Amino acid sequence: MLEKNRFGVLGINWLPHYDRYLTSDGRVAPSLAETFRSAAAIKGLEGFELVHPFQVRPENVLEIKKMLGDAGLTPISIAASISSKPQYRLGSLTADLPETRRQAIDTVTTAVDCAAELGIDLVTVWMGRDGFDNPFQVDYEQSWGRLFEAFKEICFHRPEMKIGIEYKIKEPRRWLFASTASRILLLAHELQAPNLGALLDIGHALMAYENLGEVVYLLARENRLFNVHLNDNTRIWDDDMPMGSLHLLEHLELLYWLDRVGYDGWLSFDVHAILEDPTRLVEESLHFTRGMIQVMNEIGRPAIEAAIQTRQVSEIMALVGKTIFPKAYK
Amino acid sequence: MLEKNRFGVLGINWLPHYDRYLTSDGRVAPSLAETFRSAAAIKGLEGFELVHPFQVRPENVLEIKKMLGDAGLTPISIAASISSKPQYRLGSLTADLPETRRQAIDTVTTAVDCAAELGIDLVTVWMGRDGFDNPFQVDYEQSWGRLFEAFKEICFHRPEMKIGIEYKIKEPRRWLFASTASRILLLAHELQAPNLGALLDIGHALMAYENLGEVVYLLARENRLFNVHLNDNTRIWDDDMPMGSLHLLEHLELLYWLDRVGYDGWLSFDVHAILEDPTRLVEESLHFTRGMIQVMNEIGRPAIEAAIQTRQVSEIMALVGKTIFPKAYK
Amino acid sequence: MLEKNRFGVLGINWLPHYDRYLTSDGRVAPSLAETFRSAAAIKGLEGFELVHPFQVRPENVLEIKKMLGDAGLTPISIAASISSKPQYRLGSLTADLPETRRQAIDTVTTAVDCAAELGIDLVTVWMGRDGFDNPFQVDYEQSWGRLFEAFKEICFHRPEMKIGIEYKIKEPRRWLFASTASRILLLAHELQAPNLGALLDIGHALMAYENLGEVVYLLARENRLFNVHLNDNTRIWDDDMPMGSLHLLEHLELLYWLDRVGYDGWLSFDVHAILEDPTRLVEESLHFTRGMIQVMNEIGRPAIEAAIQTRQVSEIMALVGKTIFPKAYK
Amino acid sequence: MLEKNRFGVLGINWLPHYDRYLTSDGRVAPSLAETFRSAAAIKGLEGFELVHPFQVRPENVLEIKKMLGDAGLTPISIAASISSKPQYRLGSLTADLPETRRQAIDTVTTAVDCAAELGIDLVTVWMGRDGFDNPFQVDYEQSWGRLFEAFKEICFHRPEMKIGIEYKIKEPRRWLFASTASRILLLAHELQAPNLGALLDIGHALMAYENLGEVVYLLARENRLFNVHLNDNTRIWDDDMPMGSLHLLEHLELLYWLDRVGYDGWLSFDVHAILEDPTRLVEESLHFTRGMIQVMNEIGRPAIEAAIQTRQVSEIMALVGKTIFPKAYK
Repeated sequence: MLEKNRFGVLGINWLPHYDRYLTSDGRVAPSLAETFRSAAAIKGLEGFELVHPFQVRPENVLEIKKMLGDAGLTPISIAASISSKPQYRLGSLTADLPETRRQAIDTVTTAVDCAAELGIDLVTVWMGRDGFDNPFQVDYEQSWGRLFEAFKEICFHRPEMKIGIEYKIKEPRRWLFASTASRILLLAHELQAPNLGALLDIGHALMAYENLGEVVYLLARENRLFNVHLNDNTRIWDDDMPMGSLHLLEHLELLYWLDRVGYDGWLSFDVHAILEDPTRLVEESLHFTRGMIQVMNEIGRPAIEAAIQTRQVSEIMALVGKTIFPKAYK
Repeated sequence: MLEKNRFGVLGINWLPHYDRYLTSDGRVAPSLAETFRSAAAIKGLEGFELVHPFQVRPENVLEIKKMLGDAGLTPISIAASISSKPQYRLGSLTADLPETRRQAIDTVTTAVDCAAELGIDLVTVWMGRDGFDNPFQVDYEQSWGRLFEAFKEICFHRPEMKIGIEYKIKEPRRWLFASTASRILLLAHELQAPNLGALLDIGHALMAYENLGEVVYLLARENRLFNVHLNDNTRIWDDDMPMGSLHLLEHLELLYWLDRVGYDGWLSFDVHAILEDPTRLVEESLHFTRGMIQVMNEIGRPAIEAAIQTRQVSEIMALVGKTIFPKAYK
Repeated sequence: MLEKNRFGVLGINWLPHYDRYLTSDGRVAPSLAETFRSAAAIKGLEGFELVHPFQVRPENVLEIKKMLGDAGLTPISIAASISSKPQYRLGSLTADLPETRRQAIDTVTTAVDCAAELGIDLVTVWMGRDGFDNPFQVDYEQSWGRLFEAFKEICFHRPEMKIGIEYKIKEPRRWLFASTASRILLLAHELQAPNLGALLDIGHALMAYENLGEVVYLLARENRLFNVHLNDNTRIWDDDMPMGSLHLLEHLELLYWLDRVGYDGWLSFDVHAILEDPTRLVEESLHFTRGMIQVMNEIGRPAIEAAIQTRQVSEIMALVGKTIFPKAYK
Repeated sequence: MLEKNRFGVLGINWLPHYDRYLTSDGRVAPSLAETFRSAAAIKGLEGFELVHPFQVRPENVLEIKKMLGDAGLTPISIAASISSKPQYRLGSLTADLPETRRQAIDTVTTAVDCAAELGIDLVTVWMGRDGFDNPFQVDYEQSWGRLFEAFKEICFHRPEMKIGIEYKIKEPRRWLFASTASRILLLAHELQAPNLGALLDIGHALMAYENLGEVVYLLARENRLFNVHLNDNTRIWDDDMPMGSLHLLEHLELLYWLDRVGYDGWLSFDVHAILEDPTRLVEESLHFTRGMIQVMNEIGRPAIEAAIQTRQVSEIMALVGKTIFPKAYK
């Protein structure tokens, strides 16, 4: 169970921390080569999610590919960054200025081209600026029209390449358009695009009060679950805490459903190392995740499925408890 | 603007209050005739949402029709009640026992028949029991399979009748399946049922962190906005407070979008009169709503649309503020 | 570590489930004797929290004592019930009618007398009705004046007996006065009552966005931590889920701090068995809690304290992970 | 009513927007003189909250005083900034390094000296870094010990000067120590410091699920309400939206209670102009606030008090509705 899944990571984890009050935590961002080395040093970690344009661009694709190979890492995907520049402050794919929308779309399609050259089939998009901060700030018909138009172009640029939207319900804008798994399905249905799907960041799902197992099922039944980011939070905000640092049973349920739907993609750690040693944080996230996978394998799918059918949480607690707290049952 | 909308109400507002700690507040439920009289006494209130089987059943349709007419009320819809009986405690349309699912489906289709006989075209369904309370309690594939199957039968029972699902993200189950507007669209797409849509309860939308105007637009563009319930809450729970008792600008934005999409249905007050005089509560909810509609009409759509395009909340605040606080600008 | 703590339970766990939509789940409430037998059958469970007036009253104190003894259970406390009767619907200790306030105060002082006769020193009070549902519903000066007055009488009735307020931020009223641990300390400071303290229900603390370990410390430093209820929730509502069914690390931290402050009271399971087998639910909650205590003991306080001082969550994750997922580190 | 209150503002409102994804919104921070001019240009705005060390320092107190006077503004307070430097990233008054704690304390006491020289009696402190991000990250006994020690020194530095803590429950740390109004009272009781109180930021109160009127009352009854910041949010996050942009009735209730307790301090707009014209945003916040004050004055305290005593929200809605939506009652 889940033996087929491999662990990956994002470079963002090694960046210094800043927030709306602190523009520096006193640390210096490592070079990409240093980041690759840090990631590769983590036992069991094999993949890396790249970012265009900050890390990979048409002119350096082969160089990056070599650097990754030298470090012993496999590329997972390219995230097209359309959220971190001043011109995107009021929207990227839904911006008011046609040239800003053009720039955003081109960024995504260029990322698609880079990915193809790199030999992978996945580009991810997080629309952190496409939303609104106040009532009456946007015209929803206008904004959704722009969203549909943009993804039409993006999805049909290279139909054999997958586009995974990392949905999120809020932050940095107070409300975001691509907020839930169902909204991604809505977008895909509208465009009838088989290559449009989701990057499931489980912290984003928790923040939208989604059940992790349920959205895995709903996305996978339409073959639209393209990537998974692992982290944890308080459900109230995208805290990007290490996987398993708060919750247990829901994360086990996530792993069960990833196995159940036959997900064979990557599991990437997207943790925000606020003032922590980033390498250690990924390392321990990986240990916890591997531990949880082992627990699920040890219990086995038939026992889990029988427990679910009793509708009694005590049954699943007994299965898990006996595995992680065996002495408590003596 | 919005002159075409008429105000309605639910009988639930006149029921005594109880919760999980208090099984009686010392009041006695009024008879249906008394409820009709109370509702009809509210100036400007014209419609009533009936409930099957508690209020209307095949054998009393004509009698109820006459009672409503005598009271001077128009029937809006019939809500098929599949959430308040012990057999539904672990699910109605997704229950484990086939006979419970059958009973729930039959309740909805009977409500459809009653509605047809009553001369209206809308039945609403709230699936307050179809969800789960703990991780690993349900098999999402099994549950969603049952949901699809149930609505297939319901929607094709009388394709000319509309079925409006009142979506809600939680309570009384800790998580509910039909949680957001997008999930209703997902269900409708799956079944390719043009008569399946939503009853938008704006408190439920706030609780799911939806923007009211945005979901009106998303539902209406597929002709799936069938009914609207007005109330208010803290966004954290389905408090069913009177319309306008907490929020202002978002409710104005809702009214703007209902007008913008040409919604010509009812606006029903679904307020939970915890220990209040229920008639007065509806009366004041109606005054506030009418006042908000008048504010929007006074400002006018061109001015609102121009304000939206500035992307500046100060512009819309100025328009609203000058209308409701004219002295503050002197 | 924590070997000194004993496990208890509340009878409420065996009651049928009802909520504001379902007044019966089809089950019948067991007799008190049956409840005692069910509780006593749970291996490792030793204590029982009684309720006045529903279970224990001046006239049956000795009988209840004998029944408990026969069942092999120890009485923990008496909860004075002032939230479940119609006359308390708009407040008990802060009600408008002087006779209602009198009745509520008398209920608490009678519970104190019963407790004394029973040979225990703790009465708990949950003020589920003392709060408000809307802005402008109460006069805070008037309400807090009544609160101060009521607890003055209650605390000085028998100063050698402890009064533990079970604080909660909301539900069933939309806002409650005795909302957080700090509010209990505020009340105690105002009255200069050394016997006034808190019953910490950890689900209530999570719902108020409190950190469990921090409130244990803040209450214990003033000797005002009188009792602890164990359960779990989504932080958004008082879901009363079984201990450990969602969270892990925060519960471990709670256990660490209970040990650190030398808490020698009871740990009672206050879980709401929605449609579950109540005995099994307590049983598995107890297994999980015992398992967590064993984990903390196995790690040991020096290692935990060293990990805290690193300020790195990866350190504590490594300690816990190696204990519960040992194979993941091979 | 509330005629005695004067309106003020913070300079932060004119700063460019940045967040954890966007380090620039393309705008340049205005000079302090420009900020003063922008503030002074807002009709009805009279006060300004200064920041030490960024704006005012011992060596420029007289210069700042003159600049303010030239602009026609009155100084309200000095905020001692101990949250925005890398050395404070893991805490300021509770930092691990003694020299960091010393620096933070000295920053506050220097601000106190500057305030005294400026002829005002209020210094405010927001401890945005004193908290934690994960379970087991801090030792609560150690941290609270440091808090007590720091405020002992701060409060007794110049006992005639007031220290107002701007409490907040989370952000930027995932949990903050000085989280609620009651925690400020707890701190003040511990230190027996009559000059320690609160700066009530109403958005922070909403985020902690506090009722605005209730905390005004609780703080004022101990003479510990020193300043008020006006803004609005979704209750889930510190959105810093303009006053009145979401809520109405609770803000009216706040104004009622400020009047009721005789608050004669400033009302300052602390709004975060995400990509908005900051001057216009303050201007419209002021219009809305003045409009709300006029509404409350028009209704009058006796009518409001009578409505409260009915415990019926419909009564207060009728009073407010007739004032702001008079046509809806015809």
